[in-house]
Amino acid sequence: AAESATSSTSESTGDSKFKMINVTKENKIYKIMLNRPAKKNALNHQMYDEIIQALDEAGKDNSTLAVITGAGDYFCSGNDLENFTSGAGGDIPGMAKAAREILLRFVGAFISFPKPLIGLINGPAVGISVTTLGLYDLVYCTDKATFHTPFSNLGQSPEGCSSYTFPKLMGTAKASELLLFNKKITAKEALERNLVTEVFPDHSFQKETATRVEQYAQLPPQSLQISKRLNRRAEIDLLHRVNADECDVLVERWQSDECMNAIMNFFKRKTSKL
Amino acid sequence: AAESATSSTSESTGDSKFKMINVTKENKIYKIMLNRPAKKNALNHQMYDEIIQALDEAGKDNSTLAVITGAGDYFCSGNDLENFTSGAGGDIPGMAKAAREILLRFVGAFISFPKPLIGLINGPAVGISVTTLGLYDLVYCTDKATFHTPFSNLGQSPEGCSSYTFPKLMGTAKASELLLFNKKITAKEALERNLVTEVFPDHSFQKETATRVEQYAQLPPQSLQISKRLNRRAEIDLLHRVNADECDVLVERWQSDECMNAIMNFFKRKTSKL
Amino acid sequence: AAESATSSTSESTGDSKFKMINVTKENKIYKIMLNRPAKKNALNHQMYDEIIQALDEAGKDNSTLAVITGAGDYFCSGNDLENFTSGAGGDIPGMAKAAREILLRFVGAFISFPKPLIGLINGPAVGISVTTLGLYDLVYCTDKATFHTPFSNLGQSPEGCSSYTFPKLMGTAKASELLLFNKKITAKEALERNLVTEVFPDHSFQKETATRVEQYAQLPPQSLQISKRLNRRAEIDLLHRVNADECDVLVERWQSDECMNAIMNFFKRKTSKL
Repeated sequence: AAESATSSTSESTGDSKFKMINVTKENKIYKIMLNRPAKKNALNHQMYDEIIQALDEAGKDNSTLAVITGAGDYFCSGNDLENFTSGAGGDIPGMAKAAREILLRFVGAFISFPKPLIGLINGPAVGISVTTLGLYDLVYCTDKATFHTPFSNLGQSPEGCSSYTFPKLMGTAKASELLLFNKKITAKEALERNLVTEVFPDHSFQKETATRVEQYAQLPPQSLQISKRLNRRAEIDLLHRVNADECDVLVERWQSDECMNAIMNFFKRKTSKL
Repeated sequence: AAESATSSTSESTGDSKFKMINVTKENKIYKIMLNRPAKKNALNHQMYDEIIQALDEAGKDNSTLAVITGAGDYFCSGNDLENFTSGAGGDIPGMAKAAREILLRFVGAFISFPKPLIGLINGPAVGISVTTLGLYDLVYCTDKATFHTPFSNLGQSPEGCSSYTFPKLMGTAKASELLLFNKKITAKEALERNLVTEVFPDHSFQKETATRVEQYAQLPPQSLQISKRLNRRAEIDLLHRVNADECDVLVERWQSDECMNAIMNFFKRKTSKL
Repeated sequence: AAESATSSTSESTGDSKFKMINVTKENKIYKIMLNRPAKKNALNHQMYDEIIQALDEAGKDNSTLAVITGAGDYFCSGNDLENFTSGAGGDIPGMAKAAREILLRFVGAFISFPKPLIGLINGPAVGISVTTLGLYDLVYCTDKATFHTPFSNLGQSPEGCSSYTFPKLMGTAKASELLLFNKKITAKEALERNLVTEVFPDHSFQKETATRVEQYAQLPPQSLQISKRLNRRAEIDLLHRVNADECDVLVERWQSDECMNAIMNFFKRKTSKL
């Protein structure tokens, strides 16, 4: 996509440390593009790691704000379920523990990110790419975006601090539809439920949001950081506690029969379609 | 109503321990129907007690979730004001203390209920049947439902944790309209204010919600319980404190001139209509 | 305006202690009208002081509730930036410290106000007159009202407890648009974001809101105060902490280059228009 090309005027990192994401730095904007479009930008462990590194770098450099978006048609299809099946050599408890550590650090990087963080949701979002939206400062989406957190279908439970942020954003009665009962919502519904700041027609989404973000990046950076810190101050400790609680619960979930059966069925359905 | 009939395939309790409510258990759904339609399902002390018992039973049995609905045209007309006039033999402080105990236990049973709790609001809801909605996990209502909490009209004050949940759901400026200034709202307004998950046309309400609930009841039960517990974890202690505070305040209110005059006027108006 | 005239049946204070606001007391309503229409009701230090005094008086007298509105076309254009340039004799740290004290007391008076507080937003609202809206119990506005908090444009940061109340009212993604990115919103948007209880057509705003407020003022006053106290109980300590945090941050902001440059530019633009 045109957006992922490193512009000639940018101070692009140009290094090869990132394989799964594409990072550009220009006009005081640190832009992270999830770049695994053939997998609908599903998050494997290396991708989690690279996003954590990029957020760390973005928090310290001279950019005013950071942006996260996706390459291709999807924003992000969530946790790559192959994380559960590959590389662990059958050591389920070890796999669960490792997954816990990376999830804890990943969500923690969002909670602690010191500058404004803007999500440009270019298409469907699933799982942890939805649950972490409550930790962004601004979320713009195309009208083709959808939001889906099918946790109980997979025998799992909420993460990304959504067990705290979603009831706060939309009330328990609407949050449970998403977090317990697997409802997929539209962009308009996500706007009404305060997950999203504004919805744009797909044809003008890239252009309109780029204009906005460029304007915001010219605002006084200290004022923005300090204002963001104030907005988060009353609940930052709670957010870290919620993150730890959610990760602890997931470690148990991943080793439960409910979850293993659900994931096995997922791969069976996938295979049967081949 | 057809919905209250115990189906032949159900594991109905069939016992006679409940007089004011009707309980059915089928398809992993524990369904509580308020069953005092001639009194618009107003809650007298026995009814409070039976609901507490039923919730306790539902939390422990093999059902996946619990449902509360009402028989007849009303969901529930709130606290039966005859609780204030009958049986106390003029011992107002004793009456107030007893009412506090049952209210504390009643709301506490909602706060602590361990499984998904779904409200099917089949008609108008008043008082505590509205204020406790913030403690449900899902609230479906017919478009004929209305929601009314006329506390200050009766010299009373909020309960059901609404002094905490309502400002959280809709902001203080809208919560005060309900909790301080006696505004009755429509189903659509309740949806906009996050009290309600979804509104259904009255003619299809029973059928559509039954279909949904049956689907939800087939989801992995451990995943649902654990997800609900996470959603509530950050505030469960606070909810119990708020409940106790609200009950303490009401004990004073019930013994105040403002309240006694308001209730006396209520019965005068009622009598003058006979 | 007709609304600011002291009616002949009122127990008007009639005293001369207030110069910047107009206070009337009638029908159990304590009404504060910001009365500096030539300056769009911008708040200078004397005006802050008078509002604090008036709220103190309103909290103790026999009125049932208090109302705040503005004279003329504006509700309030926010902090008078001349507070930063006049009277300090170049002693910036001294000016910042004095401004902190008055802001802390001003917002504290809203947090602790014991009776229902109703905002009648008669026109555009800016800065602290917007951020304190989360501390009112009811906010009615005309459809000509707008709401604008241009903090980062001025190198400043949120106050009025908005860093806490705005994310609670509308979610972080929408709160940041206002608190970080200077978005001005309409009355309808303020309603959707729970800042406002109801919007009225401008031509009927004065009449319709007067009728409502008069009805509310006849409700049992103890019940209203006790209900308001309950609504605020769970977060009153937090609100005072947030207020202090916000004021501490602003003291630093006011002495920062970002802020001084922004304010200097503001006055340059203003002068160049003369």
